[in-house]
Amino acid sequence: MVKLYDFELSGSCYKIRLLASFLGLKYEAVQVDFVNKEHKTEKYTALNPFGEIPIFEDGDLRLRDAQAIMVYLASKYDRSNMWYPNTPEAMGRINQWLSTGGGEVMNAAGARLVKILNYPLDLEKLQAGANRVFKILDDHLANREWLELGHPTIGDIACFPYTALAGEGGIDLKPYPNVLAWIERIKQLPGFIAMPGI
Amino acid sequence: MVKLYDFELSGSCYKIRLLASFLGLKYEAVQVDFVNKEHKTEKYTALNPFGEIPIFEDGDLRLRDAQAIMVYLASKYDRSNMWYPNTPEAMGRINQWLSTGGGEVMNAAGARLVKILNYPLDLEKLQAGANRVFKILDDHLANREWLELGHPTIGDIACFPYTALAGEGGIDLKPYPNVLAWIERIKQLPGFIAMPGI
Repeated sequence: MVKLYDFELSGSCYKIRLLASFLGLKYEAVQVDFVNKEHKTEKYTALNPFGEIPIFEDGDLRLRDAQAIMVYLASKYDRSNMWYPNTPEAMGRINQWLSTGGGEVMNAAGARLVKILNYPLDLEKLQAGANRVFKILDDHLANREWLELGHPTIGDIACFPYTALAGEGGIDLKPYPNVLAWIERIKQLPGFIAMPGI
Repeated sequence: MVKLYDFELSGSCYKIRLLASFLGLKYEAVQVDFVNKEHKTEKYTALNPFGEIPIFEDGDLRLRDAQAIMVYLASKYDRSNMWYPNTPEAMGRINQWLSTGGGEVMNAAGARLVKILNYPLDLEKLQAGANRVFKILDDHLANREWLELGHPTIGDIACFPYTALAGEGGIDLKPYPNVLAWIERIKQLPGFIAMPGI
């Protein structure tokens, strides 16, 4: 049985819910009380010493990190071989955006945590970092519909949630029209599901 | 022809040099003047808008991000299928440590930039973040020789350089004996090459 340790308002958990929906994969969801930091308790650090969610289980296999979980899910359950195509070039290209989605785009996630949960982080610095990566995304999408390969991949999913949620971190996406159009394209994909704020 | 935009003292560039050496892959190295921020000039941001090295080229394919480049190189040139084995479970497991190597371990890289190039970053916070991940690594390696799969993978390479260079960021690895033993195991691998500080 496939199991996801999940929190509805987490954009990182949403990446897994969204990919599972695109793949038509059913799973058991375990709700984690993120607001009260249940993911930092011993019960959860035993599952993931980094104290983060999502955590994912498929039989005896347990994985942490939304990007790693997507690599597994797409490689295992995507019969179309579209989301993480099994060629060196496709995997290399997509991994660039897995790094960006788990890296620079998380500036926007941090800004959102300041705004909605009062995390003691440097809001201005986070917003500036988010704006830098949104500009790069906007330029990259000027002559492309998708981040790589001409079709949706887990690279798009890795960057999507915290970009689409940027407004909740006080970041305006109006200067990035190509990003806004890309967000709309993702929302139109068959099997798309929303989360609060998107 | 395979080309690497390289800087000798960059642990991220060293990941690529090290994997190429393990794979027996020849490449052309282009030296980038990192100290004088040549990677932030227009010439280089045209190759990688994130303004970072390594940048990698194989014919018409250009890739940024050390982790993504390693996924490509191992998938394309590793005839042993050891460094990034082509199964969903192996790729998922390894991608966890690609995220860690490009993420939490970079705290140690930041601390090193403060110490050796006077970057205006929060040294104490970076050292604390590095110590947190080194403790996790040490616990993980308590009953393992390698991070995943019982043999070396690009997950190990992703985490290795900035862990081995931690001392240059003022971080003592003595509290992490399993990490120190793992560093020694990597140094003993056939084809291992060093970099200054390692």
